[in-house]
Amino acid sequence: MFDKATLKLKVDPLIMGALNEDITSEDVSTNSVMLEETLGEVDLICKEDGVVCGLQVFERVFSILDEKTEFTYFAKDGDSVKKGDLIAKVRGDIRVLLSGERTALNYLQRMSGIATYTRSMAKLLEGTKTTLLDTRKTTPNNRIFEKYAVRCGGGSNHRYNLSDAVMLKDNHIGAAGGIKKAVEMARDHVPFVLKIEVEVENMDMVREAVEAKADIIMLDNMTHDEIKTAMEYIDGRAAVEVSGNVTKENIAILTDLGVDYISSGALTHSAPILDLSLKNLHAV
Amino acid sequence: MFDKATLKLKVDPLIMGALNEDITSEDVSTNSVMLEETLGEVDLICKEDGVVCGLQVFERVFSILDEKTEFTYFAKDGDSVKKGDLIAKVRGDIRVLLSGERTALNYLQRMSGIATYTRSMAKLLEGTKTTLLDTRKTTPNNRIFEKYAVRCGGGSNHRYNLSDAVMLKDNHIGAAGGIKKAVEMARDHVPFVLKIEVEVENMDMVREAVEAKADIIMLDNMTHDEIKTAMEYIDGRAAVEVSGNVTKENIAILTDLGVDYISSGALTHSAPILDLSLKNLHAV
Amino acid sequence: MFDKATLKLKVDPLIMGALNEDITSEDVSTNSVMLEETLGEVDLICKEDGVVCGLQVFERVFSILDEKTEFTYFAKDGDSVKKGDLIAKVRGDIRVLLSGERTALNYLQRMSGIATYTRSMAKLLEGTKTTLLDTRKTTPNNRIFEKYAVRCGGGSNHRYNLSDAVMLKDNHIGAAGGIKKAVEMARDHVPFVLKIEVEVENMDMVREAVEAKADIIMLDNMTHDEIKTAMEYIDGRAAVEVSGNVTKENIAILTDLGVDYISSGALTHSAPILDLSLKNLHAV
Amino acid sequence: MFDKATLKLKVDPLIMGALNEDITSEDVSTNSVMLEETLGEVDLICKEDGVVCGLQVFERVFSILDEKTEFTYFAKDGDSVKKGDLIAKVRGDIRVLLSGERTALNYLQRMSGIATYTRSMAKLLEGTKTTLLDTRKTTPNNRIFEKYAVRCGGGSNHRYNLSDAVMLKDNHIGAAGGIKKAVEMARDHVPFVLKIEVEVENMDMVREAVEAKADIIMLDNMTHDEIKTAMEYIDGRAAVEVSGNVTKENIAILTDLGVDYISSGALTHSAPILDLSLKNLHAV
Amino acid sequence: MFDKATLKLKVDPLIMGALNEDITSEDVSTNSVMLEETLGEVDLICKEDGVVCGLQVFERVFSILDEKTEFTYFAKDGDSVKKGDLIAKVRGDIRVLLSGERTALNYLQRMSGIATYTRSMAKLLEGTKTTLLDTRKTTPNNRIFEKYAVRCGGGSNHRYNLSDAVMLKDNHIGAAGGIKKAVEMARDHVPFVLKIEVEVENMDMVREAVEAKADIIMLDNMTHDEIKTAMEYIDGRAAVEVSGNVTKENIAILTDLGVDYISSGALTHSAPILDLSLKNLHAV
Amino acid sequence: MFDKATLKLKVDPLIMGALNEDITSEDVSTNSVMLEETLGEVDLICKEDGVVCGLQVFERVFSILDEKTEFTYFAKDGDSVKKGDLIAKVRGDIRVLLSGERTALNYLQRMSGIATYTRSMAKLLEGTKTTLLDTRKTTPNNRIFEKYAVRCGGGSNHRYNLSDAVMLKDNHIGAAGGIKKAVEMARDHVPFVLKIEVEVENMDMVREAVEAKADIIMLDNMTHDEIKTAMEYIDGRAAVEVSGNVTKENIAILTDLGVDYISSGALTHSAPILDLSLKNLHAV
Repeated sequence: MFDKATLKLKVDPLIMGALNEDITSEDVSTNSVMLEETLGEVDLICKEDGVVCGLQVFERVFSILDEKTEFTYFAKDGDSVKKGDLIAKVRGDIRVLLSGERTALNYLQRMSGIATYTRSMAKLLEGTKTTLLDTRKTTPNNRIFEKYAVRCGGGSNHRYNLSDAVMLKDNHIGAAGGIKKAVEMARDHVPFVLKIEVEVENMDMVREAVEAKADIIMLDNMTHDEIKTAMEYIDGRAAVEVSGNVTKENIAILTDLGVDYISSGALTHSAPILDLSLKNLHAV
Repeated sequence: MFDKATLKLKVDPLIMGALNEDITSEDVSTNSVMLEETLGEVDLICKEDGVVCGLQVFERVFSILDEKTEFTYFAKDGDSVKKGDLIAKVRGDIRVLLSGERTALNYLQRMSGIATYTRSMAKLLEGTKTTLLDTRKTTPNNRIFEKYAVRCGGGSNHRYNLSDAVMLKDNHIGAAGGIKKAVEMARDHVPFVLKIEVEVENMDMVREAVEAKADIIMLDNMTHDEIKTAMEYIDGRAAVEVSGNVTKENIAILTDLGVDYISSGALTHSAPILDLSLKNLHAV
Repeated sequence: MFDKATLKLKVDPLIMGALNEDITSEDVSTNSVMLEETLGEVDLICKEDGVVCGLQVFERVFSILDEKTEFTYFAKDGDSVKKGDLIAKVRGDIRVLLSGERTALNYLQRMSGIATYTRSMAKLLEGTKTTLLDTRKTTPNNRIFEKYAVRCGGGSNHRYNLSDAVMLKDNHIGAAGGIKKAVEMARDHVPFVLKIEVEVENMDMVREAVEAKADIIMLDNMTHDEIKTAMEYIDGRAAVEVSGNVTKENIAILTDLGVDYISSGALTHSAPILDLSLKNLHAV
Repeated sequence: MFDKATLKLKVDPLIMGALNEDITSEDVSTNSVMLEETLGEVDLICKEDGVVCGLQVFERVFSILDEKTEFTYFAKDGDSVKKGDLIAKVRGDIRVLLSGERTALNYLQRMSGIATYTRSMAKLLEGTKTTLLDTRKTTPNNRIFEKYAVRCGGGSNHRYNLSDAVMLKDNHIGAAGGIKKAVEMARDHVPFVLKIEVEVENMDMVREAVEAKADIIMLDNMTHDEIKTAMEYIDGRAAVEVSGNVTKENIAILTDLGVDYISSGALTHSAPILDLSLKNLHAV
Repeated sequence: MFDKATLKLKVDPLIMGALNEDITSEDVSTNSVMLEETLGEVDLICKEDGVVCGLQVFERVFSILDEKTEFTYFAKDGDSVKKGDLIAKVRGDIRVLLSGERTALNYLQRMSGIATYTRSMAKLLEGTKTTLLDTRKTTPNNRIFEKYAVRCGGGSNHRYNLSDAVMLKDNHIGAAGGIKKAVEMARDHVPFVLKIEVEVENMDMVREAVEAKADIIMLDNMTHDEIKTAMEYIDGRAAVEVSGNVTKENIAILTDLGVDYISSGALTHSAPILDLSLKNLHAV
Repeated sequence: MFDKATLKLKVDPLIMGALNEDITSEDVSTNSVMLEETLGEVDLICKEDGVVCGLQVFERVFSILDEKTEFTYFAKDGDSVKKGDLIAKVRGDIRVLLSGERTALNYLQRMSGIATYTRSMAKLLEGTKTTLLDTRKTTPNNRIFEKYAVRCGGGSNHRYNLSDAVMLKDNHIGAAGGIKKAVEMARDHVPFVLKIEVEVENMDMVREAVEAKADIIMLDNMTHDEIKTAMEYIDGRAAVEVSGNVTKENIAILTDLGVDYISSGALTHSAPILDLSLKNLHAV
């Protein structure tokens, strides 16, 4: 769950944006047929197996519209759920339940989809010393939700954004005139609390990165054999991250290498939603 | 392409939000190694076959950061592209190219992914009189991009949000006390320029909807046979939309029914991205 | 009344803007003489006959400043009120009552003025089948309030804005190359749930519009005789709206024509306010 | 005209709000029939006699959407215009001209209406030493436009808002325990650069206000004779403002009294619009 | 204390900005070790002698994050406090106490620093008829806090900003063509409720300013003798403000002159903070 | 200098806030006497010795108001300047120069003050291996400016905010149940790219922190001898930061210890401004 500060400062403004996107003047359908506040209750039902994630965001959509809305939960973020499971009951003004439904589900389904996909990949790393990481390949204006979903699914987060860690790629290295120089410039410029990661593509670069005392070395798009050679050379002198179109289908090949981290953009850019829906709305 | 008003009023604020999400203080990596503005150029390359979409949004990310950035295009939104195709060249301050890269690609990859998926489904409807529609199952704070991508892929848009059309579902109907009453209440309440759609689940409801003179009748989760019966009964007295977990895999079964519209949430909630990347950055 | 979603998403930000417009640093007068919170009560009095409208907005101005403010109502939106009537009592921190007074009344007086003017015109259409409509000629950043006031006065709303219905005017028709082509292009481009209205100025255009199957035909600035001829030709094949500087003074001439809708910009652009004021503030 | 700082800081955000109110997703009509930018020109025509005001705001609406839009003026703010006069020509992308038209005119018509009404009242004070003032009875989120329009019409502005001058009314006086005490408290609390005005209703209060050395005394709802007596008593020891439902119809009675200021809420709360329109749009 | 309107309209948005500046994604330290809400209490302790100011802002930082946070005060704004004094106890979710701590203290320390510095200067004016004033030399986006702190320290506020009083400096005078003309133009242009102050540098300008009936004359950077001569000449015909790098160190020299006001930018631009801290956090 | 992305995303919105704080309706003084745009030029003059910093922010204030404003510089950020030095010339609409003057100088003076103070402390560390650091004790809504000023003065930045590094203080350690546990929990929770710093107060804690493999150990308020002992024990196994009311007056005592970092809140919370002003404004 998000703590109160994150919820208030980061989550609420995004939900407000999402609601405003869905309501220009008013919910014309609901307001036509329900002229008064009416207390009702609805069930949140799971429609396929997976990992549920985003219940707090789902809740917040309704609470922003009406703080009196009440929630009873039968599962919590990170739980495995089955088709047909009752996840929660929501009680409040039926008009609020209807006007907020789509936005609430749009968040919940996407977050649960990412958690589900992440869980399935993380399982393939169980028993290894390798941690599964996300990337910055998140949906614009949804990063905070998607990175949280990765954690719920059993993955870990890579840097949050361009400001909280140094990642020196080929273009940075080229501009600086070599890995050593690039790392030095970064050491000089950025807050000393930030780690410095260098992205490398071959053994020469690996050697330079180790020499430059990079905190983390990312092996980008290397073959199994190349990674193995690199691991032997690095030998614990830097943390090692492996990257490059890693998906559920191909991650198995990387599990015997003993790398510290494997990062996968697919976690957040290509996970399908988990189907959930609101059912059995009735006045109470 | 978005017209200027939409771009300025709707697109720009969302891009600003996305950039702010990715930059808290500054791009610490780029600013460490590039202390001055340096003119450079980079190629936008397609890494798998599909439909490209979102080039204007991609461009705007960089233009917002530096209006002097220049773009040369070798494809346009809606074009089919192949792995390896050069889509565009971008020329400008290398620091801007690096700081905006991820946000620009995050938009472009998602929009292209939706256009690609939509195109593949729309193809299955070619030769029929049926139009493929999206839904409101869009990613929060990304609707304007996703609905545009559906159009680029050959689909059409259903209502934009809760305010610009009436959709009477079971809960609305229940609250009103029947389809007829619900339609009347909507006619009375909403701007007369809005059409009224009624979602039905069985033949009784179909009959009521026709009688109530609904502009559109949505057949929700009906079988092939049920739809056929409904079509015969409706017989042109209302437009007909078919809905209910329609995907690329199962749409074929619906093509012989002569319905006016088939809507699919999958277009926007489960399309994987199209892989595109910036390559060959070099000073010029 | 506005439902909770509309209130939170649409009304509150506008009221915040209005309050910020009226208070730069603080209410220097009130804060000079009242150094502490003091509970008080004030009466909302009607100072001329009319239709009251906007009580919820009036209330919200104070509630935003202090959620503990209490309200007792003796009339509701849409009620006819007489000079001298007590409309409501407001109880709360006197400083809040004073600081919010002008903003609250500025909303209430304008909304009541529009409701009053609309009621007087709507009365002239009683017994006919014609509905009175507003237009988009609303005060900038006040549309949601003014369109609601029209409804309270007995009118109906035309489209909310440029996005929720198609209105093809001479310039659109010219650009498309004729009414038929324009309607086709609109059908192709816009969400199918939006109706298409065509503005016509003569019988040739009426014929084209009917042929193009426009949902609504707006007869713009036509004479009584021209309208009559048009009505006979259209004969129910499209809804008919009459427009063109219609005011309380000249609407009578249009009542025998059987048109579906008469729209009047005067409802929102030229209605004088209804005088209401806060009186008898006293500590309690 | 507004200076650049006011335009950028105060005017632009309000215009953005107004445009967003009118465009949710896009201008569906215009974008249906005009798929590309097309250069066009349109005339701004006056449709009834009055005073034009707000041309810069009118211009800004279009310039915000497209900074390349060009304007040629044949009149300027404050000019008397006649029915049929060509006020300006606007040249730019026709889509921008159409999408911005209503918002631009909504501002221009209201501002011109206020200037026109103000001019007609100000004329009745010509030859006297009395200045016509507006009040804070302005339309929410439109104060900056309406106060400017009053100046264009020949009136002057009263305080801008609750923060830039002290106005002690009966409630403030009551809370303080008398006029003298209230003025003292205000002198103590507020920036010394702010003048202190006291609203009085009878001769006792006039005497107290003079004694308290109020900078300005407002005679509220007094009769002609009462005002006369008050003027003789005050005898230049404070500036005098007369207030209370002053309109074009009843202001004449106040012109022989030699008061410094007469304020009228009607200037901004009840002036009808001045009819202006865009005509003859054509491609160029 | 700020009244509710000022708090809601002016203070809250600034605090939200400050909190967002300090939290990009979440408080990673606190959220790592405290996974659940835990009730705790902490003491606000004074670490050096001074004047405390800003307790309401300090409180609001926490209340915005969690409205259930509770506060017990042992001092109030404007009180002299000693090193070691317990100022307040704060009770609430420990995570909120930790995440808001720095922002709350950053406000409180700066406001108390200004109040402390102001108190020390105001003391030097005790027994004279001279009032100590601040200037517009405040920290950007902190004016409302700093001007309030000046008042808590015993000073008074000069104008709030460029809009609420006229200050004619050499450049304005030059542009107008002399003091007399400048004052006339200001009288003509600005709301009559605003006072007009003229900044002068020599006796010629003093004479002109008196003649022009300026409400206030500011003697800028004049020597003791020049001020004395000016005071004799002005002789009560205008309020007199003395200005020009006045600090705690040099203000004594100005105390025998009988000027109405002495303004000092140092109050807000060079006061060091007052050291305060949160201690003894413990679960309860 | 700030790069373009930081300028656009982070700096501009804060400057807009600052300008809005200073202008409610308009600059009444300037607009009274200058009715038209007039080209002028003004000199930025240094009035005391120090380090100049913030010229880009100074420039941006005017450029936001009028992008045509032109600047010629005779010094750049970080330069030592002397009383009387001409720093820059600004040319543009005199109204813009006057309306923006105070806000531009408020930024420039504060940033230069911090750079000047930092330079004087950094000098005392010259020849040592110790780097001077700032803290999060910055002025609310001014952090980006103040941290930049520290760098211009020769200091380095500590973490930007609560999200980009872990700092475990006594409360975090207490909540976790010991340093070791706290570090483990942080390793588990936060992005692996963030370093973990532990604040310690005695040798027991130092030992625990080393054992827990903290990346950085902060020695808080330790004596010279204690620090020496700690340094010997740590012996390079973690970076060492010394903290605790370090100022220009007392930093000398810490220079012989060989610590990696000394952090000082005084850099940003108690530096007086550097006096700079705009002089010699004249039309050109």
